[in-house]
Amino acid sequence: MSTVKKFGLQEIVAHCKEYGFVYPSSDIYGGLNAVYDYGPYGSQLRQNIKDYWWRAMVQAHENIVGLDASIFMHPQTWVASGHVDAFNDPMIDNKDSKKRYRADHLIEEIYAGKLENKIAKEIRKAAKRFGDAFDEQEFRATNPRVLKYQGQIDSAIERMNVFLNAEDLAGFKGLIEELEIKCPVSGTGNWTDIRQFNLMFSTQGGGSLGDNNLYLRPETAQGIFVNFNNVLNSSRQKLPFGIAQIGKAFRNEIVARQFVFRMREFEQMEMQYFVRPGKELEAYEYWKEKRLRWHQAIIGGENAHRFHNHEKLAHYANAAADIEFEYAFGFRELEGIHSRTDFDLKAHQELSGKKLQYFDPELKESYVPYVVETSVGCDRMFLAVLSDALQEDIVPDADGKESSRTVMKLHPALAPVKCAILPLLKNKEALTSKAREVFDRLKYSFQCQYDEKDAIGRRYRRQDAIGTPYCVTIDFDTLEDNTVTIRDRDSLEQKRVSIDEVERIISEKVDVAQLLRQL
Amino acid sequence: MSTVKKFGLQEIVAHCKEYGFVYPSSDIYGGLNAVYDYGPYGSQLRQNIKDYWWRAMVQAHENIVGLDASIFMHPQTWVASGHVDAFNDPMIDNKDSKKRYRADHLIEEIYAGKLENKIAKEIRKAAKRFGDAFDEQEFRATNPRVLKYQGQIDSAIERMNVFLNAEDLAGFKGLIEELEIKCPVSGTGNWTDIRQFNLMFSTQGGGSLGDNNLYLRPETAQGIFVNFNNVLNSSRQKLPFGIAQIGKAFRNEIVARQFVFRMREFEQMEMQYFVRPGKELEAYEYWKEKRLRWHQAIIGGENAHRFHNHEKLAHYANAAADIEFEYAFGFRELEGIHSRTDFDLKAHQELSGKKLQYFDPELKESYVPYVVETSVGCDRMFLAVLSDALQEDIVPDADGKESSRTVMKLHPALAPVKCAILPLLKNKEALTSKAREVFDRLKYSFQCQYDEKDAIGRRYRRQDAIGTPYCVTIDFDTLEDNTVTIRDRDSLEQKRVSIDEVERIISEKVDVAQLLRQL
Repeated sequence: MSTVKKFGLQEIVAHCKEYGFVYPSSDIYGGLNAVYDYGPYGSQLRQNIKDYWWRAMVQAHENIVGLDASIFMHPQTWVASGHVDAFNDPMIDNKDSKKRYRADHLIEEIYAGKLENKIAKEIRKAAKRFGDAFDEQEFRATNPRVLKYQGQIDSAIERMNVFLNAEDLAGFKGLIEELEIKCPVSGTGNWTDIRQFNLMFSTQGGGSLGDNNLYLRPETAQGIFVNFNNVLNSSRQKLPFGIAQIGKAFRNEIVARQFVFRMREFEQMEMQYFVRPGKELEAYEYWKEKRLRWHQAIIGGENAHRFHNHEKLAHYANAAADIEFEYAFGFRELEGIHSRTDFDLKAHQELSGKKLQYFDPELKESYVPYVVETSVGCDRMFLAVLSDALQEDIVPDADGKESSRTVMKLHPALAPVKCAILPLLKNKEALTSKAREVFDRLKYSFQCQYDEKDAIGRRYRRQDAIGTPYCVTIDFDTLEDNTVTIRDRDSLEQKRVSIDEVERIISEKVDVAQLLRQL
Repeated sequence: MSTVKKFGLQEIVAHCKEYGFVYPSSDIYGGLNAVYDYGPYGSQLRQNIKDYWWRAMVQAHENIVGLDASIFMHPQTWVASGHVDAFNDPMIDNKDSKKRYRADHLIEEIYAGKLENKIAKEIRKAAKRFGDAFDEQEFRATNPRVLKYQGQIDSAIERMNVFLNAEDLAGFKGLIEELEIKCPVSGTGNWTDIRQFNLMFSTQGGGSLGDNNLYLRPETAQGIFVNFNNVLNSSRQKLPFGIAQIGKAFRNEIVARQFVFRMREFEQMEMQYFVRPGKELEAYEYWKEKRLRWHQAIIGGENAHRFHNHEKLAHYANAAADIEFEYAFGFRELEGIHSRTDFDLKAHQELSGKKLQYFDPELKESYVPYVVETSVGCDRMFLAVLSDALQEDIVPDADGKESSRTVMKLHPALAPVKCAILPLLKNKEALTSKAREVFDRLKYSFQCQYDEKDAIGRRYRRQDAIGTPYCVTIDFDTLEDNTVTIRDRDSLEQKRVSIDEVERIISEKVDVAQLLRQL
């Protein structure tokens, strides 16, 4: 059962569509860019991920409570949070192709990309010439041509950042023209002016309700901050305590891509942890470690994750790190842990005129708490879990020969279907009715699937492809002695057990509580 | 433990805020009309309702699969479904007060309401005069003044419907003027023209994504219809089969009210059941009964629910009924069961040019399936469960006297907190550390709460008010013999059991699987 290969992104996308995990949204109308629908197995896997998060965060912590704030919020929320003024991307259109780009991507990807290709070419040439003696690091540090290209990249990015920080969009456009950056579609440098494009979707309230500018929340965190007093007054928590929430958020990404990694409609699993000022960095370190363990408990491999500590911090943060996962397209953010200080609560306090404070019985004084946030994208987590689990491996056939199979080695607690019930033959009523009897007995406890079509080997393969950890087969012996075989997806081991034991055996293996105890 | 009273709507709203079930959204900014946030206990109760629905529908049925379609869909979806053209309410503004009304409400509520008050007054007078001999039904059928008022109401509504069916908005406005209906705020009859107001929220896609008019879905059903082929191809289901989904939908209700009953942002739990044409009415009857049993299993009382069969059917339906529940404001819709024919699939087939058909292996022919829908509002279900459970009853005190308490008699499977762990005294370290030990042991299996503050009686009352079915108390005997008491919320019975037994005892009582087996 050695793993032959992991899947690339395009193979993952194809597998997801074929096996009912993820479909392009509104597929029959040609799809909707950067929006996806979760199918039968995908919706269940996603639900299991959310359940694992909720139980690990809320249920297992005496001092964390849940919340489910609405997507619509009072428009002032987004004034206080800074999103109305500053949640922008600089945009530019090519007048000939009518294509729209993020202006910073023209520099960072199109301009820099060309130079990086040139560097790569020099490196390939040199590697060929020098053979084993080639030292890439040294070559990069000394080769005049490579140094020139790298210098051009660094200088362009530095100059862009100066313009962006000064909000000098005309200067930024001048840079694009000076560097003679061309549109990849039209091939021309005929650009519009750059303008800031707010990433929030807005809509009109209207009616007699008088709230004319409603936004779709671009993050779930603010729903927690504006409810700080309500939760404090009704939950009887004392600092430190957390408020956890799972919910959708929306961002009008100009360039959305990489499947469910960056979507315009996505779901977040967030916890805001309120602490006494001065205690935030301790909490920050605590949650970094704790959240990493949560990931590692279901995605194996020491090297699947890494921390990326932010050097440049957002204006509201005094420490920040990402937990990155190695997707098919490289290491990218999976979860963010941010020490957000008292920025948000203070901003809401100021704009609303309502005190958002905590009376500390030990210090006998009131203050605005500091906040440490843990925020993981539900869809990114889905993609990470699936990327890790989906693979091709080599297994022995029924006749002992080796053959390859596609298998999704999901943790049993996350698998969409826990158990498939398979009568050995479809046309023997005694077998199928016994199999349905087993199905009806197990179905209340966990998600099962009954399947009678095709040879048993093909049915096993289908279950492997959707990650079902256990297959229960009803054969002629079952009719004699009331035993069945349980086949393990990963080890392929088949154990013969009494029907009365099946529910207990599988329940224990798929139970999230077992996972939580290890955290 | 006789019930003294159920709560009125305002008392429910107040209880929900005080005890962390529901808060007005964006409360610190003065709230957002007809939008609410669910607090710690509310979000958990709502999650438990969703879980009960999902498991009853998807997990317990071999032939029902799940789906989680996005809120954003291709704009053509809403052309095909008819929402772009016909999902409107007639609106009218009073020029003096600047207040906006649904024009049909001016007739049905303001005009008819006045006349109904007059009828009520006549009835009160007569009842006083005739005493026990008074027969209201006979009085209504014979009293000339009552007959006149009732005739005016009926005639106005009938005439309004004629104008609405003919889409004659000018005629409708003429009726309002003829009846001299005044704005309750300004007192004048100075009205604007009536115009149709679409209930869909719209937003702009923009970016390079090219989808300029995005709507927030006004119902979840269409996400199922447009995915019919994808699900059929990837789930290997045969007719009849169902696709189930839980998700948010949005309607720009001009007059939203009655707490979470009618919100602008709400959540639906829907299943579309696909059948061979001609089999739909059989399926419709089957699901009516089945869905009623689902409700009755968690909301007691023979008379809490009733069917309301629609006489006037929507254009897409050939049979429809509501399951109504008696809320604090009367019987209202809780769930709809609709036989939707092949209307939606055919409309999408026509507009998209993609076949949405099923090849029936028995008939050896392809056809567009018929659809039976079951659709329950998650928030309405929340309100129904809570309205049914929340009450004041009379219980014996510790010293045998009777006193009243507020208690939420939720089914244990739905209760947000399953078990409270209470050390008898706060200042005895042996008791509190033992209690935390019990908490840490139970917390992985179900939602627990540790509470040490105040006298034990007050802590019981707090748990009663949030519906916690079991309180486990750690006292001095616990330290001797490792036993605790489990107090039952409803019977108040206290049983002494071994600590090792607690997890099993409570797990069995709060297990949703037990509930499902009864359906």
